[in-house]
Amino acid sequence: MTNGTEIDACAGIGIPDMTGSTGESMRKSFLLGDLACRLGGTLKGDPHVQIRGMADLEHAGADELSFLTDERYIPLLERCRAAALIVSPSHEHLDFPLIVCGNPHVAMARASQLFAEPPHLASGVHPSAHVEEDAILAEGVSIGPLAHIGSGCSIGTNARIYGGAYLGRNVHIGADCLIYPAVTILDGCTIGSRVILHSGVVIGGDGFGYAQDEEGHHVKIPQIGTVQIDDDVEIGANSTIDRAAFGRTWIQSGTKIDNLVMVAHNVVVGKHAMLIAQMGIAGSTQIGNHAVIAGQSAIAGHLQIGDGARVGAKSGVFRSLDAGEEVLGAPALPARQFWRSMAHIQRLHEYRKELSELGAKVRKLEKALQGE
Amino acid sequence: MTNGTEIDACAGIGIPDMTGSTGESMRKSFLLGDLACRLGGTLKGDPHVQIRGMADLEHAGADELSFLTDERYIPLLERCRAAALIVSPSHEHLDFPLIVCGNPHVAMARASQLFAEPPHLASGVHPSAHVEEDAILAEGVSIGPLAHIGSGCSIGTNARIYGGAYLGRNVHIGADCLIYPAVTILDGCTIGSRVILHSGVVIGGDGFGYAQDEEGHHVKIPQIGTVQIDDDVEIGANSTIDRAAFGRTWIQSGTKIDNLVMVAHNVVVGKHAMLIAQMGIAGSTQIGNHAVIAGQSAIAGHLQIGDGARVGAKSGVFRSLDAGEEVLGAPALPARQFWRSMAHIQRLHEYRKELSELGAKVRKLEKALQGE
Amino acid sequence: MTNGTEIDACAGIGIPDMTGSTGESMRKSFLLGDLACRLGGTLKGDPHVQIRGMADLEHAGADELSFLTDERYIPLLERCRAAALIVSPSHEHLDFPLIVCGNPHVAMARASQLFAEPPHLASGVHPSAHVEEDAILAEGVSIGPLAHIGSGCSIGTNARIYGGAYLGRNVHIGADCLIYPAVTILDGCTIGSRVILHSGVVIGGDGFGYAQDEEGHHVKIPQIGTVQIDDDVEIGANSTIDRAAFGRTWIQSGTKIDNLVMVAHNVVVGKHAMLIAQMGIAGSTQIGNHAVIAGQSAIAGHLQIGDGARVGAKSGVFRSLDAGEEVLGAPALPARQFWRSMAHIQRLHEYRKELSELGAKVRKLEKALQGE
Repeated sequence: MTNGTEIDACAGIGIPDMTGSTGESMRKSFLLGDLACRLGGTLKGDPHVQIRGMADLEHAGADELSFLTDERYIPLLERCRAAALIVSPSHEHLDFPLIVCGNPHVAMARASQLFAEPPHLASGVHPSAHVEEDAILAEGVSIGPLAHIGSGCSIGTNARIYGGAYLGRNVHIGADCLIYPAVTILDGCTIGSRVILHSGVVIGGDGFGYAQDEEGHHVKIPQIGTVQIDDDVEIGANSTIDRAAFGRTWIQSGTKIDNLVMVAHNVVVGKHAMLIAQMGIAGSTQIGNHAVIAGQSAIAGHLQIGDGARVGAKSGVFRSLDAGEEVLGAPALPARQFWRSMAHIQRLHEYRKELSELGAKVRKLEKALQGE
Repeated sequence: MTNGTEIDACAGIGIPDMTGSTGESMRKSFLLGDLACRLGGTLKGDPHVQIRGMADLEHAGADELSFLTDERYIPLLERCRAAALIVSPSHEHLDFPLIVCGNPHVAMARASQLFAEPPHLASGVHPSAHVEEDAILAEGVSIGPLAHIGSGCSIGTNARIYGGAYLGRNVHIGADCLIYPAVTILDGCTIGSRVILHSGVVIGGDGFGYAQDEEGHHVKIPQIGTVQIDDDVEIGANSTIDRAAFGRTWIQSGTKIDNLVMVAHNVVVGKHAMLIAQMGIAGSTQIGNHAVIAGQSAIAGHLQIGDGARVGAKSGVFRSLDAGEEVLGAPALPARQFWRSMAHIQRLHEYRKELSELGAKVRKLEKALQGE
Repeated sequence: MTNGTEIDACAGIGIPDMTGSTGESMRKSFLLGDLACRLGGTLKGDPHVQIRGMADLEHAGADELSFLTDERYIPLLERCRAAALIVSPSHEHLDFPLIVCGNPHVAMARASQLFAEPPHLASGVHPSAHVEEDAILAEGVSIGPLAHIGSGCSIGTNARIYGGAYLGRNVHIGADCLIYPAVTILDGCTIGSRVILHSGVVIGGDGFGYAQDEEGHHVKIPQIGTVQIDDDVEIGANSTIDRAAFGRTWIQSGTKIDNLVMVAHNVVVGKHAMLIAQMGIAGSTQIGNHAVIAGQSAIAGHLQIGDGARVGAKSGVFRSLDAGEEVLGAPALPARQFWRSMAHIQRLHEYRKELSELGAKVRKLEKALQGE
């Protein structure tokens, strides 16, 4: 089959070719036709080409798959050495071996997942780790060097607890989780399956709760709730999810949280939401499914942010938002209104001048009338 | 004594009942009358009821104490199963066993403290910890697994250094402190009594100080000062308190700091202040007693923020503030002025229109006068 | 030679005097004349005075060197006990032993560096550390207690990896680095020479990259790139530098990064830049050499920030900036324009009033004309 010929990628390709030497340098390998099949795309090119990795247009080698997900990068094709490209139907006529996919961005992500491996971690429990006797480790669990697993913990199948991670008592971790070095999960918190917690994440620190006495001293309200993180959540480096005062702080399935984010006690974040770097949510607020809260934003406490709401970068949200509402600014305004206000603000000096000139004209008119 | 009868809670109740099985499931237990006595409240109900915990109105069980601190939650009383409620005098006629307190919020906090225990930590030094020989541990100190106590450190009575915490050399920790997993305290820093440092806190990293040479290179100014944290301070997860250039960075007693807060070198924060999540203070600024600086705010360097000043969320403070001053915005304005400006900004499109219409009218008037 | 006499500081002073008792209390000592020579300054005073440290004007003892880098501190001279001062030529007539330097701020930094020592760390590998067998440690390397050095790592001459630091696999560290406790450097990242990473820094966590499928689920794009940190970079406590999606995230030489800063995947920060506390940079943005980005600012993704650009505190930059451009605000405006707009905003209530009064006058004029 020759380059440029459209084929049914899923027919007659056989099993994926997992060749590769053993050890550190081993790389997975797939036949191009098999990749097209797995991605649900249409192949235009030779299905038997060996693909050994993914890279962007600039860096892809002759045995790697690349992708075109943005028109701006078309000029890079000229010098692109990739074995094939993932493209959208609108680029199916490019003179390149292609996997044509309805959503090339998702196809690229899925193809990358096929090649990617989490950081290496030897199976079993490293001798320098400290695992309490009554902790329950499911099959395939790896515990890295100098990690700590407290009493009463359970760790799900194939989960990886990297070196230096610290799990307190009665922490439950689901299957296939990646708990990176220097993650801290405090007593009684529950983590679902396929959750990824990056280094420096703190789950279950005390919420910030005090009562003020007659002398203005802050009397600590013990934070006796927990944190629940559902399946497929990912949390970025040095983010903190505080323990509830009572009950739970809850991050629902599929939600992705970036670095240095602060989620306060008793917050509930719905499913498939996105919380972007350095944003923060104050206590007891509820964030809807599929909401997107951009970087360095703040959401005040005790609010309801509707499903699919979108909050722009650096915003301060001090009122509840309806589903799908789009806001920007601090205090946050509907996005259109924000930009209109900004445009006016930048012309205030003109308005000031116009107002003065008008004042002068009016004074002149007044004089003219009086003078009559 | 029956429900509804007012009694002198502190008379003849006897000692608190500390029953409970041993081990993980042990819970403290108090008689209701004793609790009323300890909280300085007035009991309306049977003093002999056993109370085994605290919970909010929704979650309290039949042997738990709950509280009503906000009018909004009155509807929850209908289905509340709690054994009794802490309420303010304005709710003393509720048909419920009650502890009536002048400040129910503080009473709730104090009652919770009676039941709460810090996370379990076995007493003594865990065999996997590394404690330098010359470190001095007072009576009752616990050092968790994989913790590090450097040379010249002293740890006060009953302090708990949880697993994975790292204390450098010559660090002094007062009595009854809780130093959570993954806290780092660097050389020469001093921590008072009853201080709580949450996971990921870094005390004594270098301040950000450089001189710029003729080529625009940044020449590091060694940060040879220390950090002093006074009694009853609490610092939230992943916050950082930098070491002074010379002298000390100083957090005074009773101040509470939330997560991901940045306190720069040579800052002095007074007593009983509150620094809320993700706020930051630049070098050498002094914050007064009882000041409250809300989330994601920034205070510039070399300023004086007066006692009891209040800075709203996301503000940027670039000038010193008087005692009690209340500001908002970036740059921060007096709060009233900020909201007034915001209201005007949102009506700028009306003003723009009004100005244009006025201009048209004036032109018409001018023509009319000329035409005469 | 007596106080007040100008001498050639570099002639005939001999070798520095490194006396001092052994152990913890040892302090370096230099002759004043030698210090003047090393700083390239002109001495006015006795070159044979022993100097045993640096301190600011308030705290300097009788055997310490101090400095006057700001006119505001002149009143402190009255009670200053320092042995001598570093001053600029404009203060060369002060009645004090002096080292007169063109740039006293840089001289102060360099003098402090002569006296400063990094935190003590015993040489060699601490027995409680875990170093993989194939890691390569150059001469003079120190590895602290409970630190982890993964397989395939190389550590340069005299580098210090403090206790509790975690290096994953194939991490390369240059000479003379200081890697503080609780730093995490993940697999495959490369660190230059003389780099300082403060506690809680995370290098090489996954970038925040997802594709959204037809159901609005976030499909993870594996982040298979690395991080490269060049020579003389310093990164403050709890900052995070994410791993590239493909290729590298790159911090170039001499750049200084403060605490709690977020650098996203594929960002390139040029040489000798400054990123101040709690600021963040979104993916793929390039920051020019010598740029200064102030605290709590945000730079959006895929932008070019020119050499020497300056971004004010709390700004939000949503467009590329030219070299040397100075901006402020969110969205960021040229600094002058920002302050002009702010001034107008604070007078909006006056403008509102003026507009209303003008409207009344115009109505009056209209009536007057109609009435004729």
